Amino acid sequence: MTQKLPWRIVAEWITEGEACIRSVEKIYAAGATRFQEYLIGELAGIGKSLVLDGKVQSSLFDEHWYHEALVHPVMLAHTCPKEVLIIGGGEGATAREVLKHKCVERVTMVDIDAELIELAKKYLPEWHQGAFDSEKLELVFADGRKFLSETDRKFDVVILDLVDPMEGGPAALLYTLEFYKLVANVLKSGGVIVTQASSPILTPRVYATIRNTIASVFKITRPYITYVRSYNGIWGFVAASDTVDPARLSSEEVDELIKNRINGSLRFYDGATHQWMFTLPKPIRNMLESYKDIATDSNPVYVPV
Amino acid sequence: MTQKLPWRIVAEWITEGEACIRSVEKIYAAGATRFQEYLIGELAGIGKSLVLDGKVQSSLFDEHWYHEALVHPVMLAHTCPKEVLIIGGGEGATAREVLKHKCVERVTMVDIDAELIELAKKYLPEWHQGAFDSEKLELVFADGRKFLSETDRKFDVVILDLVDPMEGGPAALLYTLEFYKLVANVLKSGGVIVTQASSPILTPRVYATIRNTIASVFKITRPYITYVRSYNGIWGFVAASDTVDPARLSSEEVDELIKNRINGSLRFYDGATHQWMFTLPKPIRNMLESYKDIATDSNPVYVPV
Amino acid sequence: MTQKLPWRIVAEWITEGEACIRSVEKIYAAGATRFQEYLIGELAGIGKSLVLDGKVQSSLFDEHWYHEALVHPVMLAHTCPKEVLIIGGGEGATAREVLKHKCVERVTMVDIDAELIELAKKYLPEWHQGAFDSEKLELVFADGRKFLSETDRKFDVVILDLVDPMEGGPAALLYTLEFYKLVANVLKSGGVIVTQASSPILTPRVYATIRNTIASVFKITRPYITYVRSYNGIWGFVAASDTVDPARLSSEEVDELIKNRINGSLRFYDGATHQWMFTLPKPIRNMLESYKDIATDSNPVYVPV
Amino acid sequence: MTQKLPWRIVAEWITEGEACIRSVEKIYAAGATRFQEYLIGELAGIGKSLVLDGKVQSSLFDEHWYHEALVHPVMLAHTCPKEVLIIGGGEGATAREVLKHKCVERVTMVDIDAELIELAKKYLPEWHQGAFDSEKLELVFADGRKFLSETDRKFDVVILDLVDPMEGGPAALLYTLEFYKLVANVLKSGGVIVTQASSPILTPRVYATIRNTIASVFKITRPYITYVRSYNGIWGFVAASDTVDPARLSSEEVDELIKNRINGSLRFYDGATHQWMFTLPKPIRNMLESYKDIATDSNPVYVPV
Repeated sequence: MTQKLPWRIVAEWITEGEACIRSVEKIYAAGATRFQEYLIGELAGIGKSLVLDGKVQSSLFDEHWYHEALVHPVMLAHTCPKEVLIIGGGEGATAREVLKHKCVERVTMVDIDAELIELAKKYLPEWHQGAFDSEKLELVFADGRKFLSETDRKFDVVILDLVDPMEGGPAALLYTLEFYKLVANVLKSGGVIVTQASSPILTPRVYATIRNTIASVFKITRPYITYVRSYNGIWGFVAASDTVDPARLSSEEVDELIKNRINGSLRFYDGATHQWMFTLPKPIRNMLESYKDIATDSNPVYVPV
Repeated sequence: MTQKLPWRIVAEWITEGEACIRSVEKIYAAGATRFQEYLIGELAGIGKSLVLDGKVQSSLFDEHWYHEALVHPVMLAHTCPKEVLIIGGGEGATAREVLKHKCVERVTMVDIDAELIELAKKYLPEWHQGAFDSEKLELVFADGRKFLSETDRKFDVVILDLVDPMEGGPAALLYTLEFYKLVANVLKSGGVIVTQASSPILTPRVYATIRNTIASVFKITRPYITYVRSYNGIWGFVAASDTVDPARLSSEEVDELIKNRINGSLRFYDGATHQWMFTLPKPIRNMLESYKDIATDSNPVYVPV
Repeated sequence: MTQKLPWRIVAEWITEGEACIRSVEKIYAAGATRFQEYLIGELAGIGKSLVLDGKVQSSLFDEHWYHEALVHPVMLAHTCPKEVLIIGGGEGATAREVLKHKCVERVTMVDIDAELIELAKKYLPEWHQGAFDSEKLELVFADGRKFLSETDRKFDVVILDLVDPMEGGPAALLYTLEFYKLVANVLKSGGVIVTQASSPILTPRVYATIRNTIASVFKITRPYITYVRSYNGIWGFVAASDTVDPARLSSEEVDELIKNRINGSLRFYDGATHQWMFTLPKPIRNMLESYKDIATDSNPVYVPV
Repeated sequence: MTQKLPWRIVAEWITEGEACIRSVEKIYAAGATRFQEYLIGELAGIGKSLVLDGKVQSSLFDEHWYHEALVHPVMLAHTCPKEVLIIGGGEGATAREVLKHKCVERVTMVDIDAELIELAKKYLPEWHQGAFDSEKLELVFADGRKFLSETDRKFDVVILDLVDPMEGGPAALLYTLEFYKLVANVLKSGGVIVTQASSPILTPRVYATIRNTIASVFKITRPYITYVRSYNGIWGFVAASDTVDPARLSSEEVDELIKNRINGSLRFYDGATHQWMFTLPKPIRNMLESYKDIATDSNPVYVPV
């Protein structure tokens, strides 16, 4: 076990006393925006990465595992999404995946951190792949919650691509009952939403509480999971709707929908991957049943570190 | 992000420049056997754990994810396994799971490290849960490969619960063509084998090569995966047989078989979990197709660290 | 910069966000006494070491730098110390150095942690070198402060070989005005005391406050320093007396006294070393002048971590 | 022991398996010049720092301990140095200290890394304090050894402010017999030289070999030491001359010379500090006696990591 020794290191603390450390082979940019500290660099194991406040947001190694898992199930479950709202999504990769859908006429991306998006445009071309230049993309620099409460527009799909809920963090109140009611408000009939939802293994209470909270607003709620090495484990999502059930798509239907409704190719998502994501192993099903709380503005849920 | 600072730490190096570090809250035993260095202690995040040569072997957090995933698919795919051979499996948890099967008449466990098994008996009761005292268990302290080449017994199921193949390590030549031919030799007609097979994400070449090597010996070969937090990611297995296909069991069949053929309860494995494990996401399927090599005694495959 | 990667690590946190990490090559003993957590092992760079509550107490690499620096200046400054009191000193190395002095008739060692001394007897023979078996040594298991307040004996030299003052730690109130008055009380006329006093570089306020506190009890107070790699920097002591000034010994006098009054040989301390220790570089002199506080039971001083 | 957890870390490997890690609170600049990787940032414990190839070069916490220790003993030992040569010294702090001497007419600074000096000018104003703008300073971007072999100028004092000798590093052959002969060649009669010389504690063989090598070229050779927290320990220098002995200056002479010959004030160096630096503790004296080798171009000495 002999290796080159790392000297620049990013340590990602997972739980109390547990961290993943990665050598930083090269730094492209490092500093702080008004909202968060950032580092864009080459990290051992996962390659070029965006790190915000000590958390890897995505890496070239597997940003497609995350972004395709987030975007495509709800987009294909909808009959034909024309108006899509993304809250967060600074790297531009969520918009990139949404724009692959032929139905899409307009993508509205609301991100609070304009400086970060400038950095993404400059340093993360492998992520956005030109999405920021699309005529269909409308970029709004605003607090997502404020946008929801003020807009009178409606959307077919709402994608919540946020940082985890951390005490004092920019997404602290973007996982509460009051927030999801605002989301429901801007949804057209037949609409679907999805949110990243932290890790069912590392922060099970957070994941279950997000699921419970969403389930108290929408008629159909589907937790699903993938694995993201850059996030150090299994990662969870929650999709929801009053009318549409993404879990009911068969493997064959997904493959057919991809063929018909998506331009370009996918690297992660297909029919079998869809089945894999919506099938939860027994311990995660049991865990979800064991938590009953919901998150509200006055009693929100936070990841522990 | 304020926490108690760790002072005793186990660092598990995953790839060049990438490690998972865990605070050691308590040390039960630490030292070296003739074959390996060990530490048994309470690790942050994953609880009581056995660490060998710097690699977490299993923890109370999710040893059942690993051991149930290893044992039950092949045991239930077989019509009724009476004679079972385990190579490795020092903690006694693999034997524990095998002994839950009503069909089983004799379990032969061959482990090279008698000192380690004494430690397991003393310090890991949550793992073996008395399995070492079972009258059906026969414990053999021997090199697994030597045992295979000398025995004239035959088995219904062979379970390879080994450390990863590391240059100079005790399992360096327990993943080669020559080794799997020895395994095939001791298999009864209708028999099935399974091996842990490293991580398809962290060491894809190793995983794919093990799959390829086994596929050159057996008619039916099924790679499958689970997630093991204690191993820092998705973990891979390969099941194989000349007659039996574990992948063909439906969710309902698995649930029925568990009810009929297993004493006691399972915490991880059931029908849905089975589907989850045998459904591989697209990037892993693509990865498996991209590697063609097989491992031989003269050209073995090793994990990089 | 390629090296063998460490997997068992001791991290010693020096200040907020700053730590020294050392690979643990071998563990001799690890656990907890009633008073503290311990690890005795081989540490990279400094060899066999005793670590208590995450702090290296001493190592074979340079325990003689520390123990000779602590013991000999005050012992030789005294005209002929017969009765010596050590408070703390669990490893037995302070007693070992004291017993080298021909004048000594009785050494009373008061340590709160009997279990730790059993461990030292068993695992640290290179430290005590038989000192625990000396007929001149009297071992008392007691709280040092309680001992001082109850004893009616008097001593020529008192040596305070304590862990740093930490909030809630066993030596939290062994660096205060009230404590040093108790020490002064048990001192014979012509007596001298010395205490380890933390690092003037890493915890300057603590070092200066200990110096100030002692200076408010004794007429002559001499701060002096050495370097201890195992403590990650320059280390400080304070010697004090009403009549004797250890700083006034010339290099030649020290060498002569060593020849006449010490059995066996010294590895660290001699006349030139004495000059080196009692000469403080300008920044440390300036630092000492800048702090005016003293520590009392109601307003004690603590190291920050 | 609860602290804010570091996420950006600089790890400085001291010896095999031993490192000092420091949280990077802020990054001012990070990248690579033609010759080395650099990071300029705020490091826990030592503040604003320059790190090259994983080694802290100097920090605001104690760059004056290092630079004053390097410069002033030889400058004051000389009768009145007019022409001074610095090889290395990229931060500009060595030039800053030299320029304080009233005798100095011209300082020639030869550094191989022009990009690094641009970074120093921009990001390290606390170090150079305008030295780069001095009319007395002549900046030459060249390999130091090449400069020495080609110049026909002579100097009163030569100051070698180099990175440690590392295999393949920029200073690999700037500590050999052949190199010191080149240095001797450019020295005026009455001249003095000094070099930083690694740590007598962490790399004793390197320190002793540099001392031995210089002693084989000059008639008077004086090893001396200080402590530099940013370098994780005691740090060594070697001064040499054919006529002048810096060790012979008394404390009073040093204080007098400072008053008469230096503009501005010093923060580290004075008469007592001089005595402290030139008095070596017994283990370092013994260590120096135990090594006999000298370094040559064909048999150079390197720090181990």
